[in-house]
Amino acid sequence: MNHKYTDDGLALHTDLYAINMAETYWGDDLQNRKAVFEVFFRKMPFGHGFAVFAGLEKVIDYLSQFKFSESDITYLREELGYQEDFLSYLRELRFTGTVRSMREGELVFANEPLLRIEAPLPEAQLIETAILNIINYQTLIATKAARIKGVLGEEGIAMEFGARRAQEMDAAIWGARAAYIGGFEATSNVRAGKIFGIPVAGTHAHAMVQAYQDEYLAFKKYAERHKECTFLVDTYDTLKSGVPNAIKVAKEKGDKIHFKAIRLDSGDLAYLSKEARKMLDEAGFKNTKIVASSDLDEDTIMNLKAQGAQIDQWGIGTKLITAFDQPALGAVYKLVSIENDQGVMEDTIKISGNPEKVTTPGLKKVYRILNRVSHKSEGDYISMENEDPEKESPLKMFHPVHTYISKTITNFEAQELHTTIFENGNLVYEPPQVQDIQAFAKENLNVLWEEYKRTRSPEDYPVDLSVTCWENKMDKIHEVKEKVEREIGK
Amino acid sequence: MNHKYTDDGLALHTDLYAINMAETYWGDDLQNRKAVFEVFFRKMPFGHGFAVFAGLEKVIDYLSQFKFSESDITYLREELGYQEDFLSYLRELRFTGTVRSMREGELVFANEPLLRIEAPLPEAQLIETAILNIINYQTLIATKAARIKGVLGEEGIAMEFGARRAQEMDAAIWGARAAYIGGFEATSNVRAGKIFGIPVAGTHAHAMVQAYQDEYLAFKKYAERHKECTFLVDTYDTLKSGVPNAIKVAKEKGDKIHFKAIRLDSGDLAYLSKEARKMLDEAGFKNTKIVASSDLDEDTIMNLKAQGAQIDQWGIGTKLITAFDQPALGAVYKLVSIENDQGVMEDTIKISGNPEKVTTPGLKKVYRILNRVSHKSEGDYISMENEDPEKESPLKMFHPVHTYISKTITNFEAQELHTTIFENGNLVYEPPQVQDIQAFAKENLNVLWEEYKRTRSPEDYPVDLSVTCWENKMDKIHEVKEKVEREIGK
Repeated sequence: MNHKYTDDGLALHTDLYAINMAETYWGDDLQNRKAVFEVFFRKMPFGHGFAVFAGLEKVIDYLSQFKFSESDITYLREELGYQEDFLSYLRELRFTGTVRSMREGELVFANEPLLRIEAPLPEAQLIETAILNIINYQTLIATKAARIKGVLGEEGIAMEFGARRAQEMDAAIWGARAAYIGGFEATSNVRAGKIFGIPVAGTHAHAMVQAYQDEYLAFKKYAERHKECTFLVDTYDTLKSGVPNAIKVAKEKGDKIHFKAIRLDSGDLAYLSKEARKMLDEAGFKNTKIVASSDLDEDTIMNLKAQGAQIDQWGIGTKLITAFDQPALGAVYKLVSIENDQGVMEDTIKISGNPEKVTTPGLKKVYRILNRVSHKSEGDYISMENEDPEKESPLKMFHPVHTYISKTITNFEAQELHTTIFENGNLVYEPPQVQDIQAFAKENLNVLWEEYKRTRSPEDYPVDLSVTCWENKMDKIHEVKEKVEREIGK
Repeated sequence: MNHKYTDDGLALHTDLYAINMAETYWGDDLQNRKAVFEVFFRKMPFGHGFAVFAGLEKVIDYLSQFKFSESDITYLREELGYQEDFLSYLRELRFTGTVRSMREGELVFANEPLLRIEAPLPEAQLIETAILNIINYQTLIATKAARIKGVLGEEGIAMEFGARRAQEMDAAIWGARAAYIGGFEATSNVRAGKIFGIPVAGTHAHAMVQAYQDEYLAFKKYAERHKECTFLVDTYDTLKSGVPNAIKVAKEKGDKIHFKAIRLDSGDLAYLSKEARKMLDEAGFKNTKIVASSDLDEDTIMNLKAQGAQIDQWGIGTKLITAFDQPALGAVYKLVSIENDQGVMEDTIKISGNPEKVTTPGLKKVYRILNRVSHKSEGDYISMENEDPEKESPLKMFHPVHTYISKTITNFEAQELHTTIFENGNLVYEPPQVQDIQAFAKENLNVLWEEYKRTRSPEDYPVDLSVTCWENKMDKIHEVKEKVEREIGK
């Protein structure tokens, strides 16, 4: 540690460039210039058909407490050489903007705004890194959890067991919460249980069997202290030693314990679970469940289920908590509108040789278009702020790049997806309990056709632009291109 | 949040099973029974030839402050139903053990103990999850950083730019520190700069160019507030607009600014950097550097260098901070010795159908065997606690699984790698500054032959067992197997 500064706060949890830009704006007297940024990602994580939005609760905490401490100011002055007048400005800075956002548990898709931040330019810039850091990870894990839970179905109990492999402590805690939002039933992390009020699960480790140097004795000792017993049976030999010892202890203890489950943590889980099931059934323990863990992910689970594995509860660690096959979401934070000298908002665009990277300018809203007959979603629809899709019937929906892909919808409801979270710096939203967020996510899945829920090759869910929004984007592209050409010509 | 408990501490940062085991031991009056656990990983991350140990400083903080708070106790009582007498025991619990550990920046390898914890059994069990969580991530990132830095060489400046893609906030902060330990020169994260005293770097974003809606104007405004100028040149068109505008502003400002660098963030970095280099040179800015970023990792960097890219400084984000190609290290925490009823330490083993998963029993030491002629390492050597390899000359080193692979060393020095960190709960180690840790890691690389430093197909560095250690392991395997067979026979 740098023992000069002993306190810590989150205002400095930003890339340095944000402070340099803030200084530029402030120095140019643009500190009150209004800007609008949007957060979105460009590609569906894991090639999944939908993503589950998470992270808002922490973003709310972060923005509510946004403030440079005296030691932050001292650090910026003494180590980075910022000037006193700029530092005075930073010292007084609080978040005064307006935030509209998806709610946690909402199903979200590539290229639609997840959050929209309207704030004075330097403020909006200073909060970029932290917001992306939070939303990227939590949305990634909620999505991975929903993907795994989708394979397990209602009857397969999913438990998050990843803390020891998580990427540091915040990931363990907030990952456990995100997994719960995505549909997991429990976490092994006690701290996450305490902080968020989510169920915790766990039994004992191999070390306990080793400590007693006798598996039977270890199970017996555990059963003497715990009414609810799940025995880990693979320390020495699952079928020859572990399951027989578990059954022996359970028979001896009779009603004194509830022989809840055995846990398998290595070996061929399909074979072992089927054999163990037979042994448990024959011994009269038909209600004793089988828990399995061991580097599981949605693909392995699907295979095990296809092979008739007799597993009731699944402990999922590394592959979930690190989103192993795609450990970053890649959401970005882009300026879409800025106030000009005359106080008028002007739409902005970022051009790129890569067509997917061109941003969509302007203040926008996102709607989910629900078919009133099927009660399923026809897709999401991005309009300009002042449009109302419900006034357009039939509604034309078309692909924003391959515009010939289009459809016309008549009997529909347009559900706006953003909620106002902060209004001019005031929190106007009450974050729900995580149980309600989980229920909300589950409910949202009802409006999705099955074709978007496959883990392999799902259909692309439509995220379309309104005609006005699309035309505005095309106009801006041409405008900027012409301006650049003109400059080059000079 | 669960608004019942508003404070937060790290004692509950554990998997639930540790608390259940602690309760079992305590209930069986084993709370003072001494146990020895080791932390090690089984596979080299990224297939790299060496790993760089990191995380100790945070482990020290965690153990120093280990304590269940009143609200932790309340949570355990009211939500999880633990009994008062056990909770009274937990309330008084502090870490009283002895820890021997690799120092941060040490080069470490698969299957050697990174840390060794000797403590009363329940204590040792309760700290498992947090220690693994910390060591797994920080060691992973320090290793990834060293791998990238190895490709860049001394002359290529490496900057950590990953905060927005890190897996939550702790990963951003501790990942920045780990990257620095692995050889990176700077981070973009200001908070990491403040906490750890490491250099921070950064300039401005595309948003600044968009905000001014004019690239030339944006650069000019930036230059008015900043003496050190790095201009991001790819908002519209790198070679036609970005580089010319940067040069134009630099010429206009003359001595008033230091035109430090341009930054490329998209497109073909090999082509663009070569063209930009020519343009800068022709304009007289031969000392202006080229910074590149855009989803870089060691493979892309190697390719770009092979193509003669003119890049001086490299900003590396997602692929580093998430260890994208292998986002978990997989270190484990295993019981190797336990006190018996008579107060004598007994070695323990965990058997597995998978030979790599069989643990090595007993209290052990790790030595680096340095050849006194070449000053290079011959490999690492794990002995039992009471052995002294320097007394054995010639020293026989052999592969612990394929024992026919062996060599005999004569003129050597055996350097012990573990340092005592805690002694009976007292911190007896002064953690060094991170600059010194970085220097230590760099120095350590000098004793490694080049064949272990390749990013593709490096040679396997030997991690061997002493004859006594190996024989003890074989004896234990047979002992446990016989015991299990005997039990089954009953």
